[in-house]
Amino acid sequence: MSSISLKNLTLTVFGESHGYGVGGVITGLPAGCKIDFVRLREDMDRRRPGQNKTSTPRKENDDYTVVSGLMEDFTTGAPLCIMIKNTNTHSEDYIKLKDVPRPSHADYPAWVKYGGFNDPRGGGHFSGRLTAPLVCLGGICKQILNQMGVQVRAAISNVGDILNDTTDGSPSEAIIKLIEKHRSEGDSVGGSVQCTVTGVPAGKGGPLFEGAEGMLSQLLFGIPAVKGVEFGLGFGFTVSSGSEVNDRYRIEDGAVVTTTNNNGGITGGITNGMPVTVRVAFKPTPSIFKPQQSVDLSSMTNTELQIKGRHDPCIVLRAVPVVEAVMSFGILDLVL
Amino acid sequence: MSSISLKNLTLTVFGESHGYGVGGVITGLPAGCKIDFVRLREDMDRRRPGQNKTSTPRKENDDYTVVSGLMEDFTTGAPLCIMIKNTNTHSEDYIKLKDVPRPSHADYPAWVKYGGFNDPRGGGHFSGRLTAPLVCLGGICKQILNQMGVQVRAAISNVGDILNDTTDGSPSEAIIKLIEKHRSEGDSVGGSVQCTVTGVPAGKGGPLFEGAEGMLSQLLFGIPAVKGVEFGLGFGFTVSSGSEVNDRYRIEDGAVVTTTNNNGGITGGITNGMPVTVRVAFKPTPSIFKPQQSVDLSSMTNTELQIKGRHDPCIVLRAVPVVEAVMSFGILDLVL
Amino acid sequence: MSSISLKNLTLTVFGESHGYGVGGVITGLPAGCKIDFVRLREDMDRRRPGQNKTSTPRKENDDYTVVSGLMEDFTTGAPLCIMIKNTNTHSEDYIKLKDVPRPSHADYPAWVKYGGFNDPRGGGHFSGRLTAPLVCLGGICKQILNQMGVQVRAAISNVGDILNDTTDGSPSEAIIKLIEKHRSEGDSVGGSVQCTVTGVPAGKGGPLFEGAEGMLSQLLFGIPAVKGVEFGLGFGFTVSSGSEVNDRYRIEDGAVVTTTNNNGGITGGITNGMPVTVRVAFKPTPSIFKPQQSVDLSSMTNTELQIKGRHDPCIVLRAVPVVEAVMSFGILDLVL
Amino acid sequence: MSSISLKNLTLTVFGESHGYGVGGVITGLPAGCKIDFVRLREDMDRRRPGQNKTSTPRKENDDYTVVSGLMEDFTTGAPLCIMIKNTNTHSEDYIKLKDVPRPSHADYPAWVKYGGFNDPRGGGHFSGRLTAPLVCLGGICKQILNQMGVQVRAAISNVGDILNDTTDGSPSEAIIKLIEKHRSEGDSVGGSVQCTVTGVPAGKGGPLFEGAEGMLSQLLFGIPAVKGVEFGLGFGFTVSSGSEVNDRYRIEDGAVVTTTNNNGGITGGITNGMPVTVRVAFKPTPSIFKPQQSVDLSSMTNTELQIKGRHDPCIVLRAVPVVEAVMSFGILDLVL
Repeated sequence: MSSISLKNLTLTVFGESHGYGVGGVITGLPAGCKIDFVRLREDMDRRRPGQNKTSTPRKENDDYTVVSGLMEDFTTGAPLCIMIKNTNTHSEDYIKLKDVPRPSHADYPAWVKYGGFNDPRGGGHFSGRLTAPLVCLGGICKQILNQMGVQVRAAISNVGDILNDTTDGSPSEAIIKLIEKHRSEGDSVGGSVQCTVTGVPAGKGGPLFEGAEGMLSQLLFGIPAVKGVEFGLGFGFTVSSGSEVNDRYRIEDGAVVTTTNNNGGITGGITNGMPVTVRVAFKPTPSIFKPQQSVDLSSMTNTELQIKGRHDPCIVLRAVPVVEAVMSFGILDLVL
Repeated sequence: MSSISLKNLTLTVFGESHGYGVGGVITGLPAGCKIDFVRLREDMDRRRPGQNKTSTPRKENDDYTVVSGLMEDFTTGAPLCIMIKNTNTHSEDYIKLKDVPRPSHADYPAWVKYGGFNDPRGGGHFSGRLTAPLVCLGGICKQILNQMGVQVRAAISNVGDILNDTTDGSPSEAIIKLIEKHRSEGDSVGGSVQCTVTGVPAGKGGPLFEGAEGMLSQLLFGIPAVKGVEFGLGFGFTVSSGSEVNDRYRIEDGAVVTTTNNNGGITGGITNGMPVTVRVAFKPTPSIFKPQQSVDLSSMTNTELQIKGRHDPCIVLRAVPVVEAVMSFGILDLVL
Repeated sequence: MSSISLKNLTLTVFGESHGYGVGGVITGLPAGCKIDFVRLREDMDRRRPGQNKTSTPRKENDDYTVVSGLMEDFTTGAPLCIMIKNTNTHSEDYIKLKDVPRPSHADYPAWVKYGGFNDPRGGGHFSGRLTAPLVCLGGICKQILNQMGVQVRAAISNVGDILNDTTDGSPSEAIIKLIEKHRSEGDSVGGSVQCTVTGVPAGKGGPLFEGAEGMLSQLLFGIPAVKGVEFGLGFGFTVSSGSEVNDRYRIEDGAVVTTTNNNGGITGGITNGMPVTVRVAFKPTPSIFKPQQSVDLSSMTNTELQIKGRHDPCIVLRAVPVVEAVMSFGILDLVL
Repeated sequence: MSSISLKNLTLTVFGESHGYGVGGVITGLPAGCKIDFVRLREDMDRRRPGQNKTSTPRKENDDYTVVSGLMEDFTTGAPLCIMIKNTNTHSEDYIKLKDVPRPSHADYPAWVKYGGFNDPRGGGHFSGRLTAPLVCLGGICKQILNQMGVQVRAAISNVGDILNDTTDGSPSEAIIKLIEKHRSEGDSVGGSVQCTVTGVPAGKGGPLFEGAEGMLSQLLFGIPAVKGVEFGLGFGFTVSSGSEVNDRYRIEDGAVVTTTNNNGGITGGITNGMPVTVRVAFKPTPSIFKPQQSVDLSSMTNTELQIKGRHDPCIVLRAVPVVEAVMSFGILDLVL
C-alpha cells in the first residue's frame, strides 16, 4: 500500500503528479505539540524544484493546506492531513509515453500491475512529487522529536565519484559542477545521502523483525529511486575484522557509551543510545534526454524513446529533506 | 515483534539459545503443497554449525518437529509450526557475561529494553540459533515457490576483501584460508551474501511503502548481524550516470525484457519480470577472543571482557541458507 | 488509529466537524473499475442531514472532491482520496461544553486521552460527520462489488420498540411518529440496522482471528454509537437448541446451499455462500435537550448541563447508508 | 490469519485437534512479570473437558510446556510460546465425515477454502481444542493485568431461556438440568457469557477504527461459535431513549465517575474509567446426535448425516475461561 502502519503511527500518501493534487495523513501523533510553520516552510523549500540550476525548471509553490489534526497550531491527536494542489502541469509531454515505457522507471511494471489503468501523466502516483507531502508530514514529526531532544539531520554524502566535503551537508562546488556537466549532456547522475539522528534513547526496537533497522529501511526504500540502505559502516563491515570494528563500551559522565559508532547506534536491532546513522543510495534519475531503446506495448515491437519535459539531472540534492522526513517519521514511532 | 505480518503471510519466531528450544509459525500458506523433507533436511544442514573448521564446534542436530499445518506431507492451509529442541548448551559460559555486555552485541540495549529480565544465556532470543527455524520455514516457502516456477539461490559474494569466485556460491579456498587466519588469531571477519530469484512475474509490489524492496529489506535486516541491503547495482548506482545504468527494454520471444538488470528486477517498487537480485552485508561476528574494553553494568565502571565459548569466526558461510530462507518467505508473499 | 489495515485494503478517515473539512483515503482498490457518480450522490444524500423532520436541521451539501485515484471515472489502483469541505458550522454552540463533558459522548474519555488538546467543536474528530467520507468511499466499494455480482443492502430493523415493517427498509409511519415524539420531548431513541450481502462466494475468511465476523465487527463498531453486532440469529442463538437452528445442507441447482440461514452466511469464520446477514445496535443519540447531571472538569465539581444546537433525535435512519458503506468496504476486502 | 497483531501484542495460535498438538505464541509481553503456575493451572482446568456431566467425556490433561519467553517464572520480554501435546484422540470417528459436512460447522466452507486439503479430524484447526492455548496465554495476560490492578471476570449469563442467578457466575442447578435434558435428547443448547473488567484506566482506545469495542469484538468473534457481541446495554439500547440510558457524570472521591454504566465502560471508542462490560452470544454446539440432512461433496448428492463421537451439549460452561482469556489479551494490549 502507499500506506504504512507502524506500532504507533500510520502514514498514507495519496495523489498524482498531474491530477488534482497530492497529500498525506498521519494517525497516532501525540496531542499538544506545537508546530512552527516557518520552519516547516523551510523544509518544504529545500525539496522544492526550480530553486537552482541543478534541479528541474518546473516551478511548484507547494502551498499546502492543513486539513485536519491541528487546532491553534497544536496537534490534537486526531489524524493530521495535509493537501497540496497541483498548479503547474504539462501533461501533454507525458501522455504520448503511455505505450512506450521509460527505462528504469515504474512505467512498465505499473502497466502490468494496473492493467494499463494507472495514471501515466508525469509518473502519476509514482512521481517524485509524492515526496512533497512526505516532507511536510515528516517535518511535523521532526519538530515533535526536537521537543523531545532528538535531532535529525541529513546531508549529501556523494554524487557520482565525488565525496561531499562541505561541513553543512550542502553540495560542494565540485558536485554542482558534476551535475551541470550531466545536465548539459542530457544525462543524469546518482549519489547518496547520509542521515544522523542524535538523542535517541537506548532500548528502542527489538530482536529479529522488530528491529529498528528493518523498520527504517522499509521506510527509506519507499522513497523513489532508493536502491540501497546501510547502517553505520554498512557494507564497509564486509571487509573488516571484528577486532577493528567492534564498538567497545566505556562509562562517560555516568552513562554507557561506545568508543566508536560503527554500528550506527543500533545493535541487535535495538538502539544503544549512540547516534543513529544511515546512508541511502539513490540511482541516477532515469529520465535522460539521450535516445534510449524501449518497446511499444501496444504493438509489442522494439522502438526508440526520446524523453522530453523537465527533469532533475540529479535527485540527490532534493532528496536530502525527504530522507530527513522519512527518518523523522520512523524515529518518532520508535520513541513514542 | 519477533513476528511480522505481510499481506498474505505472517511469521513468528520464538525461543532462546539455551532454553527449551526454538521454533516458528507461518500462517497463510496455501493448502495442498507437497513438502519434500529430504530437501528440507539439506537446507537445514547448510546452516548447521560444527560441519567444518570454519564454523563453531558446537554440535546441534537441529531435529525439528512439525507441530501443525501438514497432513501426509501436504500443507493444510492451517498455521504451520515447527519446533527444534535444544540439546547441547553450555550456559555457564555465558551467565557470567550478564553484567558485562559484549561489544557490538545486543546485550546492552537488550538490558535497557527488558530491564535486565531478558535471558542472557547464549544471547537468548537474540542468538543466531533463531535462524534455524527461519531456515526450516523458509525452506518450506522455497519449495512452494519452486512448484510455481520460482527459484531462490543465495551465494557468498565476498568475505573480507576476497571476492568469491566459485561458480556454485560455496566459499573459495582463499576465503576458507582467510577465515582460518582470523580464527587462529581469535578474531572474526565480515562478508556479504547475494541472492538471486528467478521466475518472479512482473507486477508484484507497488509504489512507495508498498514497494517490494522495502518489504524484502525489512525481512533481511531481521537476520542477526545484517547491516546493509542493496538491490541490483545498489550503492554502485551512486557513482554511475543514467546513460550507463538505465535498463533498456526490448522484446524477446514475445516478452518484454531488459537488456541489463541493474535494477535487480524491481523498478518503482514493482517487479519487472527480470531476476530479483539483492546483496546483504554481514558484520564480523562480534564475539572475538581478544580482550575488549567494556563496562560492568552492576557497578557502572569500566572493565575488560574476555569472551569464551564457541563462536564462528565468520557467520557469512552459515548465513547463505538464512538469506535464501528469508527471501523465499518474502517472495512467496509477493507472488501469492 | 482512525485507520484500519485489512488484508487488501486500508482505510483512513480524517477531519473534524467544525474544521476545514473531512475526508478519507482507501488504498489497495483494484484498477479499472468504473464509478457512477450519480449513484454515489444518491448514497451520500441518504446520509445527509436536513432532509426530513426526523434528522437535525443542519444543512450540509456534502460536496466532495475526488483528490486522487480516479482517471476518467475509472479507478487507477492508486490511493483514492476524497475531501468534503465544511460549510455550515456553529462552533459557538459547542465551545462552552469544553469543560463540561456531555453524558455518553466521547468528550470525557477524549479529554483524558488527549490531555485537553482535542478539538471539542461539534465532537471534533468524534463527530458523526466523519461518516460522510465513509459513505462516499464505501459507496465506491459497493459499486466495485456490484460489478462482481455482490449486492449490499442495509435497512432499518427497529427503532425503540417498533419493528420496521416496510419492504424497502425505509422507516415506517409508526417509526417516524415515534422519532417525532422523542424530538418534541427533547429526547432521543435508539434502534438497529440490519444488512444483507448477497453474492459473496463461499470460502472467504478463516479460522479464529482470521474470521469474517471478527473483521466485519471491528469495522462496524468503528461507526459512532454502535454498541452491539450480531450475525444471523445472533443473540437469538442463545435461547435455541442445535436441532432447531443448525443450517442443514442440500444440493440445489448443482450447488451446495443451506435450507435455513441462521448462521448469516458465515460458519467457522468462513463464508458459506449464503447471504451474509448482520444486525447492528445503535444507542440513542447522547445529545438530548433535557438537563443532565455532569461535572466541570476545570473545577472537578458537579454541575448541570443543558445541551443546545442541532441534533438528530434518532441516528438510525441516517446510519443505514453508513452500515452499508462499512460492510461494502469489509466485504470487498474479503472478496478481492 | 490464526494470528492477530494489535498495537503492542501479537497472538498466534496453531495446531489441530487430532495432530501432534496445539499451542500459541504471544509477542510483546512486558519483561519482569512473575507468573503463578498454580493459578494458571486453575484457569486451564476450568476449560478442560470431562470434568462433569455437562461436558464431553473426552479426557485431556492439557499439560502444557512453556517453550520460550520465561526464565525462573518471570517473563523475559521475548515471545512466549506454549505447547500442549494431544494425547487422547479418536480420529476414526471423524474421518468418515470428510465428504459429508456437518451442518453449522466449518467443514463445508473450509473444504471450499482449502480445496479439501484441510485436516478434517475433529475439526482440525477449527476445533474447540484451539481454545486451550488461548486460555493458557490469556491466563498469563490476566496475571500481568492483576499486577496492574486490573481484574477480569467472566460468568455465565444465560443458557437457553434460563438466566443464570448464581452469584459467582457458575451454572445454576436449573441450567445444569437444562443441559442434561438436551444431552439426553442428543441435542444441544446455546447461551451467553458476560465479562466484566475493572480497573481499566480512562483514555484507552480511540475514535472510529481505533475503538476499544472494535478491537475487543474482533478478538471475541475469534472464539469458535460466537455469533454476537454487545457492550454495556448493547441491543438493549435499541429499545431505549437517551434520557433513560445516558450515563451521567458525577465527582466521587475526587474522581469522575458515571452514575450508571450503560455504555459498559467505553464511550466514543475510549475507556471512561468505569468497568468494561461485554456479553458474548454462543450458538448451540452444532454437533448433535439427531440425524441431519446434509450433502455428499464427492458425489454432490443429498444425504443424511448421523454424528458420533464426544461433544458438549453446551459449550457455554467451558467458554467462560476462554472469554476471560481473550478479554485479558485485548485489555492488556490497551493498557500497555
